[in-house]
Amino acid sequence: MDISPLALPFPALAPIAGVRIGTASVPYKRWTRDCVTLVELAEGTVVAGLTTQSKCPSPEVELCRTKLPGGQARGLIVNAGNSNAFTGMAGRQAAEAQAARVAERLGCSADRVFSASTGVIGVPLPVDLALAGVDQAHARLGQADFLAACHSIGTTDTFPKAATSSAMIGGARVTLNGIVKGSGMIAPDMATMLGFIFTDAVVSPALWQQMLRAAVATTFNCITVDSDTSTSDTVLAFATGAAGHAMLASMDDPGADALAAALADLCRQLAILVVRDGEGAQKLIEVTVTGAVDDGSAHRVAMSIANSPLLKTAIAGGDANWGRVVMAVGKAGEPAERDLLSIRFGDTLVAQAGGVVPGYDEAPVAAHLDGQEVRLTVDLGLGPGRARVWTCDLTHGYISINADYRS
Amino acid sequence: MDISPLALPFPALAPIAGVRIGTASVPYKRWTRDCVTLVELAEGTVVAGLTTQSKCPSPEVELCRTKLPGGQARGLIVNAGNSNAFTGMAGRQAAEAQAARVAERLGCSADRVFSASTGVIGVPLPVDLALAGVDQAHARLGQADFLAACHSIGTTDTFPKAATSSAMIGGARVTLNGIVKGSGMIAPDMATMLGFIFTDAVVSPALWQQMLRAAVATTFNCITVDSDTSTSDTVLAFATGAAGHAMLASMDDPGADALAAALADLCRQLAILVVRDGEGAQKLIEVTVTGAVDDGSAHRVAMSIANSPLLKTAIAGGDANWGRVVMAVGKAGEPAERDLLSIRFGDTLVAQAGGVVPGYDEAPVAAHLDGQEVRLTVDLGLGPGRARVWTCDLTHGYISINADYRS
Repeated sequence: MDISPLALPFPALAPIAGVRIGTASVPYKRWTRDCVTLVELAEGTVVAGLTTQSKCPSPEVELCRTKLPGGQARGLIVNAGNSNAFTGMAGRQAAEAQAARVAERLGCSADRVFSASTGVIGVPLPVDLALAGVDQAHARLGQADFLAACHSIGTTDTFPKAATSSAMIGGARVTLNGIVKGSGMIAPDMATMLGFIFTDAVVSPALWQQMLRAAVATTFNCITVDSDTSTSDTVLAFATGAAGHAMLASMDDPGADALAAALADLCRQLAILVVRDGEGAQKLIEVTVTGAVDDGSAHRVAMSIANSPLLKTAIAGGDANWGRVVMAVGKAGEPAERDLLSIRFGDTLVAQAGGVVPGYDEAPVAAHLDGQEVRLTVDLGLGPGRARVWTCDLTHGYISINADYRS
Repeated sequence: MDISPLALPFPALAPIAGVRIGTASVPYKRWTRDCVTLVELAEGTVVAGLTTQSKCPSPEVELCRTKLPGGQARGLIVNAGNSNAFTGMAGRQAAEAQAARVAERLGCSADRVFSASTGVIGVPLPVDLALAGVDQAHARLGQADFLAACHSIGTTDTFPKAATSSAMIGGARVTLNGIVKGSGMIAPDMATMLGFIFTDAVVSPALWQQMLRAAVATTFNCITVDSDTSTSDTVLAFATGAAGHAMLASMDDPGADALAAALADLCRQLAILVVRDGEGAQKLIEVTVTGAVDDGSAHRVAMSIANSPLLKTAIAGGDANWGRVVMAVGKAGEPAERDLLSIRFGDTLVAQAGGVVPGYDEAPVAAHLDGQEVRLTVDLGLGPGRARVWTCDLTHGYISINADYRS
């Protein structure tokens, strides 16, 4: 698989105190690369998380949901190459056995071990391989860095995706690192495929969950590659507390704003990276909707645009087909008035007041569409609602990955 | 453009008394073929219709909505190559001027002339060409048959699409003929792109509208090519009354059941023809959902499956990827229980009770997927709700038509 033309260089990531990573290779698929990732988290680590809204979630997702209210984590185990979704009792037992093995190795309760799996649906996770992966990765704890973890959690990803941010809290600099995988079946309805965030901040479980929920709402929940929502979407955020500042327990505490902003910034970076590695993506498309009756309505219109195959193929072809934007606004089912609508490609106003602008010059629009980053702005002219979402174009590459290749 | 591999032969269509057709060639695009279609309808013709739910409809759609409550028609004018949608006041005035010219030629009121246009969005219909088209088509009234009309209303269609059905009413055989065009931007939310139905039955406007609404609900509103809903979707049904049987005014009248059934049969044939000519289609996919909590829920689950790019590309590739069916059920947001779900490809049970069936043999499924007509059945195991929808696979052809070709 060629690397996405929208790939970004891997960032420099500082270690996070209290986080140790080990990876392992087991043959879930015929891969030779590592595909099991174990993260040991220091005693006292706080966890927040969000999972898919799918009605058919994987057992790993169900286990996360069960354990998240406890707010405490000591371990994370991630399998790539097998999502273990729709595998009935066998899959559930495999996920539980693997978490129990992690708990045994780390000397903690299994309800502090979080699991995630990604890959083919419908094949129970082979429990012998899953346990061997834990043992091997545990023996190698501390030998892997975030880059190795990125590679180890990936499936059809074409480049490793990570981001970092930081905040000053009570005189201490705290670091947030995140890793994420894509890259198809991406229309998260709580989180993207798999995203893991690590920080040394000191924060209560309730506040950390509140911050994560707010950050995800405008980032991971605002991306779409293909409108298909995974059975395994999971974002987990771990705070080891190693930075040693005073515990943040409320948004009123000094430094809480800074941590929330750093978390939102990190999530935004990670979410856009997922789109940059969308299957077949050649262009990153940012869709901004303003003037909707409220923010929710703006979000639904923006997602209608971002999920339109006709618009996404037009942009793939460099075609400033704003008629397809009108179509996508019209089909969203949200309040919209044709004669109040205006549309911009890049900085160029293309259409307004129910028609194309007088003397419309396509040249600057064509130049904008020739680039790798396309901005599309729609103003509905009705109210204060606004939203921004990200998607990619729809290309022959998407078809080739999903149709020509038979797994 | 190659003819769709799913094309069916053009059916033999009897003439309908009270219907005269003329076509004309005007240069809306650089086509040499006819692209203006005029239909003269006998005095007393009754009309029913349904139009797009788009919030940004074309002026033609708005004019139809205004005139439909009158229930009477004398003329139909159809332009292909220019949808006249999102063209502001200029487009509205062009549509009104063209209808007025038709009324003048036919010697009737303009509120009995129905209009439809299809093609590029955002370019006002050139009024001089639109009027010349009316004059030319009027001079040729009676020279065109339904096949010629099919060609004349088409855009990216690769084959002419028509169907016929009949019913015995009060000793008289009534005929219903329908013509339809596709073939992208198809996820009708009242009607497909453009569909026109003609019959010699004698029926009241209110009953005819009631019959059409019921027929469309399970036919045109149950197809999707690409999940994109057009700004111009219109289905109009004209009943000339020439068959001379006693007027049907209620579903309790003898023969009303037969007419309703014939209309539903006709709409089903036409709707499936649109999918058979879906952009890039190589396979026709019938999705049946049973066991939902109610029919509406079943429909939403079926459409979630039928709109999934991942499932549609898998079927294009002959891949029995039932995990993607699980995904599409899960994302629909409707009541579903993973462990009650069962999935069939063709006649083969593939998955049930939360996992693949024991001893699953992919060979008969692969053979079924090799064919041009794929049947997919999902039982949710919850209740009596059921729905059936039709779609096509998602192929390189779709991308080529919509991205590689720049209009």
